[in-house]
Amino acid sequence: MKKIGVIGGGQLARMMIPASINLGLELKIFAEIHDSPAALAVTQVGDYRDKKQLEAFARTVDVITFDHEHVPIDNLVGLRANGALIAPSPDALRLTHDKTVMRSALASIGMPQPLFFALRQGADKEQALAQVGGFPCVAKKPVGGYDGKGVRVIDAWSEIDDWLEEGTVLLEERVSFVRELAQLVARRQGGQIETWPTVETRQKDGVCSEVVAPAPGLTPSQGETATMIARTIAETYGVVGVLAVELFETHNGEILVNELAMRPHNSGHIFTELSRTSQFEQHLRAVADLPLGDATLAWPSGVMANVFGEVHQARLETALHRYPEVKIHSYQKPAREGRKAGHISVVGSTAQELLASATGARAILDDSGYPG
Amino acid sequence: MKKIGVIGGGQLARMMIPASINLGLELKIFAEIHDSPAALAVTQVGDYRDKKQLEAFARTVDVITFDHEHVPIDNLVGLRANGALIAPSPDALRLTHDKTVMRSALASIGMPQPLFFALRQGADKEQALAQVGGFPCVAKKPVGGYDGKGVRVIDAWSEIDDWLEEGTVLLEERVSFVRELAQLVARRQGGQIETWPTVETRQKDGVCSEVVAPAPGLTPSQGETATMIARTIAETYGVVGVLAVELFETHNGEILVNELAMRPHNSGHIFTELSRTSQFEQHLRAVADLPLGDATLAWPSGVMANVFGEVHQARLETALHRYPEVKIHSYQKPAREGRKAGHISVVGSTAQELLASATGARAILDDSGYPG
Repeated sequence: MKKIGVIGGGQLARMMIPASINLGLELKIFAEIHDSPAALAVTQVGDYRDKKQLEAFARTVDVITFDHEHVPIDNLVGLRANGALIAPSPDALRLTHDKTVMRSALASIGMPQPLFFALRQGADKEQALAQVGGFPCVAKKPVGGYDGKGVRVIDAWSEIDDWLEEGTVLLEERVSFVRELAQLVARRQGGQIETWPTVETRQKDGVCSEVVAPAPGLTPSQGETATMIARTIAETYGVVGVLAVELFETHNGEILVNELAMRPHNSGHIFTELSRTSQFEQHLRAVADLPLGDATLAWPSGVMANVFGEVHQARLETALHRYPEVKIHSYQKPAREGRKAGHISVVGSTAQELLASATGARAILDDSGYPG
Repeated sequence: MKKIGVIGGGQLARMMIPASINLGLELKIFAEIHDSPAALAVTQVGDYRDKKQLEAFARTVDVITFDHEHVPIDNLVGLRANGALIAPSPDALRLTHDKTVMRSALASIGMPQPLFFALRQGADKEQALAQVGGFPCVAKKPVGGYDGKGVRVIDAWSEIDDWLEEGTVLLEERVSFVRELAQLVARRQGGQIETWPTVETRQKDGVCSEVVAPAPGLTPSQGETATMIARTIAETYGVVGVLAVELFETHNGEILVNELAMRPHNSGHIFTELSRTSQFEQHLRAVADLPLGDATLAWPSGVMANVFGEVHQARLETALHRYPEVKIHSYQKPAREGRKAGHISVVGSTAQELLASATGARAILDDSGYPG
């Protein structure tokens, strides 16, 4: 039985546990805290930035994968030099670690994406601005941002003075998009690739609120473009595991790359119920170098709704009672306002009905006035 | 978060782990050995027949349920007297613990079943034989049998002399059946019941080999009878959790009760992939007193095939490669010849095709001559 090591003990690591049990793989998780969502399979608690701790963990497993992209790449390169198997590889992970590296890499292989400029300290700001189409434009911290953090839409340089003092800022054209999409693929070492249909991701305040799968109204040509983009990136950079490509659909129907993640991704949670093979199972198969599973959809459509804050027991019961068709995944995180606490999935025939169920169940869980 | 205690660390407890993670319930398992299939969630190792150990375990959880039916009922009655919640209750469990109790109970509520006689030492054998239709008849040890063990088809009393010395033997009419079926239902305290379609179970040497769901060619009236039987038993005895009723379909189309189990059951494994709600999820919902889930089927049909012996890595890879649509569940049991080591599930359109995939994949795993 192969031992899969996961760095990070968040909800993604948590949701790898059921897949590992079904596949008969042993999961060992390196978490930062004892009381993490993935606590059941945690075998080491510590700091993933510490090389010694990382090496100790690597010695207990056959291959290492990730719950997040925050491990310093140089440490991973060092681990690999010591003989550790890492999936995806540090070279592939560079693209998700630093957004300026990603933009340059995607430009070099002709992937459609927003105009961009990596603004280094002392560089010509006017040239940068011309390159991204002027204000307003989007400024991003290249490393460490997530869920809308580290991203600002700016109308003047003064709005990012603080960031520019710290280092390079990635400027991007402000794309006029009609909606956001995501395309997930999984790739095994050796080249086997499996895809899922493109999904629509609906954001609220920069955070994914709902996902509709497959993306309603997408043309076959748009779906092919989205899949081609994800396949090309996975193949070019030898990604092993799940690759999630966040996309913009522009007003004229173009598909542009927004962000990348090389791990299971919030936009793919619906495939746990919707597809023959979940993203967690597919990721572990790829990382363990097992053949990928067939990812045919079991139902015509599915909707995922994120739940924020806290899941109270009495509200959970009411939601499950009113909506017997939904699945409520609780991450068992220490409660914090606005924090993703879980998600709701529902699968069936028509996206509109499923959206009503998923958001209806969420409204019950979210209603802080509810007797709980 | 409710803490669910499971007595027994076998594959059924193992498969409750994914369901508990998805539901956000905490699972604590009391196993007999450290290296059990459910090891990941084991919190106590010891002897479930020991009252003190059982009491210690009960104090760590909110409610107790089971992976098997071997805990002495009197010990459970004692636990309950100390305030422990037990689901299903000791009263309901009596029916699965002792087959003579089950037969009498089912007779008292008019459930269709084979003729039977509980043959006590010194009883009138001729009367017993007349009651069950003469030789050949079926003899069963009332307590502790499983998978064909403790069951004999006899033509003479001498064949059960050894059993009669030990105590009561249950005699049953030898039913002339065309096939075996199983009906699963789940019941929550308070009365909510959810059912799955009746399945066909195919046996080899007294052990379940494949399950086809729904049972092909079953008439609506037969399906209603099977469901009515399971509902009636669940309601009459206040079963909480999954109830599996093993059934015979006779030559003239009658449905008769063969055996009962009050826990997830081998005949229901296919619902993990086939139904919106698996038997493991439904069992935990019932035990945790949460509303039951909708159990609509995601696909028209599903086939489960048990795997015996050992699952070798190279054979596993070949099977997954040839049959990307199948799921191979490995229980990670210490290998022993003829022992259930896992199962294969596949869901899709037509039972015949699915049977070919499931048994084809199993043939690869089972082929001891295969280069592994």
